[in-house]
Amino acid sequence: MQFSPLIEEMIQALRCLPGVGPKSAQRMAMYLLERDRKGGETLANTLSRAMAEVGHCESCRTLTEEKLCRVCASGKRNHSVVCVVETPADMLALEQTGAYDGRYFVLLGHLSPLEGIGPDDLGFDELLQKLKDEPVEEVILATNPTLEGETTAQYLVELLAPLDVKVTHLAQGIPLGGELEYLDGGTLSRAFAGRRGFDQEASS
Amino acid sequence: MQFSPLIEEMIQALRCLPGVGPKSAQRMAMYLLERDRKGGETLANTLSRAMAEVGHCESCRTLTEEKLCRVCASGKRNHSVVCVVETPADMLALEQTGAYDGRYFVLLGHLSPLEGIGPDDLGFDELLQKLKDEPVEEVILATNPTLEGETTAQYLVELLAPLDVKVTHLAQGIPLGGELEYLDGGTLSRAFAGRRGFDQEASS
Repeated sequence: MQFSPLIEEMIQALRCLPGVGPKSAQRMAMYLLERDRKGGETLANTLSRAMAEVGHCESCRTLTEEKLCRVCASGKRNHSVVCVVETPADMLALEQTGAYDGRYFVLLGHLSPLEGIGPDDLGFDELLQKLKDEPVEEVILATNPTLEGETTAQYLVELLAPLDVKVTHLAQGIPLGGELEYLDGGTLSRAFAGRRGFDQEASS
Repeated sequence: MQFSPLIEEMIQALRCLPGVGPKSAQRMAMYLLERDRKGGETLANTLSRAMAEVGHCESCRTLTEEKLCRVCASGKRNHSVVCVVETPADMLALEQTGAYDGRYFVLLGHLSPLEGIGPDDLGFDELLQKLKDEPVEEVILATNPTLEGETTAQYLVELLAPLDVKVTHLAQGIPLGGELEYLDGGTLSRAFAGRRGFDQEASS
């Protein structure tokens, strides 16, 4: 015995969402059908539009339904700095700090031979072209501090070496609000190696 | 700074799902946009069809896109027993045991004055009509063993008292595979009160 075919289909379709197993999918389906038909309809419509219309910014590759994302379309950004991130969510996190006024380049992933993701999938050619065409002076590599992220950054460092552009990465060290006791050895070693005098503000 | 308007709308829409907060919704949206457009489209289509087409079985009120659910449409079920459950998911759980061959009546909720759910919302009139029109001999009240479920069952016991029909409820006691040590006192008290001889199979 199962639910009726359409309900079973709906439960199956909900399982495409990350972190949703059979029981959660059933719970979600029952909730929408019993209590929130309007929410379900809105979700269906929005999802359908988003899947069809959301593409990539022509300049930085982030996800957007417009030709250029808001950052690239803005006239107020510093065109001499490009920050390379892995995902649109990383870009959003950096934007929300308000600490950066340059532009971005979104790789939409990281190098991962196991998953078959190589340089071609991450838009490295586009990035090189951009650096040749535009007056970029500095590239900040802000990939994640994971094995794949650092490998990707290292690859980019070598790729960008021949160009006349400064390549930097985000400072690594102890995060704010943490306790030294609970930090991993790798983070502490890097924090030691990168220690700075109290009079240094932002060296280059 | 936020994502582009359509992506923000999608994240908002995903939050109608139970158990999905702002961070999960963002993760789901990014996953669908970056990695599973096809799954997202299927979900949108199925959801839209389900919201429009799934209604209630004319006989037992369970969720189905057909006029009659499979149980009510089946010619093989025992028409003299009706099992009253709170939700379609409860009905499914009982069906999957294979231990019951009668029919169901789905309340689609339980009495809850706080949420404004009264007898009218739970189809009690329909149930009474059904019991008058059809040759039902026994009604099994299988509401959940919660405060609301038991209140609902008690209300039904009084409502059905004038009718010439046997009203029963599911046996209460220790669940299989548990350990007595970890069971709550209420369950253990009921198990004591309902203890049975080893020669009793199914008394009535």
